[in-house]
Amino acid sequence: MSNVPLLFTPGPLTTSATVKQAMLQDYGSRDYTFINAVKDIRNGLLELAGVSKESGYECVIMQGSGTFGVESVISSVIGEKDKLLILVNGAYGERIAKMAKIHKLRHHVIRMQEDEIVTAGITEAYLKQDSDITHVACIHSETTTGLFNPVGDIGAVCRQYNKVFIVDAMSSFGGVEMNMKELFIDFLVSSSNKCIEGVPGFAFALCKRSELEKSEGQGRSLSLDLYDQWAGLEASGQFRFTPPTLSIMAFRRALAELLEEGGVAAREKRYRSNKKTLDEGMAALGFKQYLSPDIQGHIITSFLYPGHPAFRFDRFYQQLNERGFVIYPGKLSKTDAFRIGNIGQIFPEDVKSLLAAIKEVLAEEGVTL
Amino acid sequence: MSNVPLLFTPGPLTTSATVKQAMLQDYGSRDYTFINAVKDIRNGLLELAGVSKESGYECVIMQGSGTFGVESVISSVIGEKDKLLILVNGAYGERIAKMAKIHKLRHHVIRMQEDEIVTAGITEAYLKQDSDITHVACIHSETTTGLFNPVGDIGAVCRQYNKVFIVDAMSSFGGVEMNMKELFIDFLVSSSNKCIEGVPGFAFALCKRSELEKSEGQGRSLSLDLYDQWAGLEASGQFRFTPPTLSIMAFRRALAELLEEGGVAAREKRYRSNKKTLDEGMAALGFKQYLSPDIQGHIITSFLYPGHPAFRFDRFYQQLNERGFVIYPGKLSKTDAFRIGNIGQIFPEDVKSLLAAIKEVLAEEGVTL
Repeated sequence: MSNVPLLFTPGPLTTSATVKQAMLQDYGSRDYTFINAVKDIRNGLLELAGVSKESGYECVIMQGSGTFGVESVISSVIGEKDKLLILVNGAYGERIAKMAKIHKLRHHVIRMQEDEIVTAGITEAYLKQDSDITHVACIHSETTTGLFNPVGDIGAVCRQYNKVFIVDAMSSFGGVEMNMKELFIDFLVSSSNKCIEGVPGFAFALCKRSELEKSEGQGRSLSLDLYDQWAGLEASGQFRFTPPTLSIMAFRRALAELLEEGGVAAREKRYRSNKKTLDEGMAALGFKQYLSPDIQGHIITSFLYPGHPAFRFDRFYQQLNERGFVIYPGKLSKTDAFRIGNIGQIFPEDVKSLLAAIKEVLAEEGVTL
Repeated sequence: MSNVPLLFTPGPLTTSATVKQAMLQDYGSRDYTFINAVKDIRNGLLELAGVSKESGYECVIMQGSGTFGVESVISSVIGEKDKLLILVNGAYGERIAKMAKIHKLRHHVIRMQEDEIVTAGITEAYLKQDSDITHVACIHSETTTGLFNPVGDIGAVCRQYNKVFIVDAMSSFGGVEMNMKELFIDFLVSSSNKCIEGVPGFAFALCKRSELEKSEGQGRSLSLDLYDQWAGLEASGQFRFTPPTLSIMAFRRALAELLEEGGVAAREKRYRSNKKTLDEGMAALGFKQYLSPDIQGHIITSFLYPGHPAFRFDRFYQQLNERGFVIYPGKLSKTDAFRIGNIGQIFPEDVKSLLAAIKEVLAEEGVTL
């Protein structure tokens, strides 16, 4: 039961052996144990977000990747007469804009540079001039770069102007303390293989029930219909269509392990320790970060390619891989960078091992910084 | 590593211990081992259908359940000017009709009774009167009842009238010898947790490339865009969005085990033995089947509820469950029945154990037939 290679990626990430072992038994999709697991997960996720069914929130699990979950919300929640404001500063924001285009939603996109956050001020300025806007969507942890957008401030503006606020918290939920009510978030989307440290297979949307109910009959596909998926789960505890049974069983175990660790607060602390160890170690090696520290989150970091001519990313990646460390390529539109994630079952000592391997590989390749 | 409970369901089904054990290591979605597994699976699935990239076919893997795969094809392949004929005799055919409605496709539905097959004759009669039809969709093994529609005969008519033929072979592919070319099938959809005996997590569409290429830009959602998914896999061997890494690794193992068993022919033989054992045993107990034997397939069988007043399906189900046997509720619109599947890692001796348990439960409940 090896944790090698260690994945320093934004997910799929390194999971515990016990999470993977939870997949060693088959379950029918109508099995009582399985249905109870689904119920536990739906309630458990709401709890992590500081809300509950009693306080008016619902959790909808959607088969597929995180993007399927985001598209489920975007393509179900925005009605024909609604208009969506999309705040973009990276590839994941662009992805929502693409969804809006495909589904022919009325929408407007505000594009920032990739190294700038979207702000409450910019949001408010636009809301003042376009009263048609009914919904606002933004990314919390933009995995393209690693920045955190100030969702609480933007949420407060949405509340003030009475807009529905949709947050893609894919790579941060579970690794950052977030209270949906306090952040004025109406829909929050994340997936099984991120900071809860489960395996891939599904996304989930945490939804303010009163807004979710408005989406009845609005779904623009059968599979990704958010309301129908919710109604199915509520009616029978079962999925409309075959669920990823074993990913669900692994996720229930992952949720239990998150609580054993001390909940989101403890996990955030560990990830921040990973990040601190990484920052100090990479700086000592001479690497520069793409983002300014005040907008950089603790989930994933973009490092600029060294200027030295002997540096070849594919060789660097491959040599680290052979040593049991998987890092992540860059995704910036204009700058060469690679990314290192701090999430999953990795600890500061693992980050130190990665740093030692990076030092070794640079020396072997003759790259100096 | 227990195979208890045994799942006599249409999937998720009983898988081998070794298939599940293939999920005990984490893989990054850009990992070489993982990318090779994806490649092996895509080629291996085409081979099972008697075709190959060289002969003009492509395999597209789609995250989510089987329905996601069917919707990916239906919502991507039928263009604005096209018109789809949907042949329906059960819930899965109805599901395609629902997709056509949601995506506002030009379409026509031919509805048969649930205990009747759709025929080449009916198809041809309609094609003669509606020359607008460009595509025909039908279900091979209609899991609602367990009947097999004669896809080869219908395919021949489609070929004669130059129509694109789409077959949902969800519950049969891998358990029935099928050659896409010989059956004149242009798109065939199935999923990971059916007769290949993998775990849930994804669907796959086997596609005639010349038809797949026509769907460029036609996708009606981002996540389920068949062409874009294919183009992404072709460009880099990677998925556009996070793949179900461990379901994929389990499936590669399942494919290898299918070949070890002797391929689809050997698997079909085993499933037919399961079916024969079930038929004989259930008849001996006095159960009646819903379908006439000439249209009944060997994948799943609908048995009528016994007329005896002491029979309660939920108790029957629960008592079998406690003995380690999971059966499946009925799905007929007008008749009370339950279903028993013959697929997955189950063998004639397992069917005999199930029959013994059924006999025991009936006696305990005081149900006579």
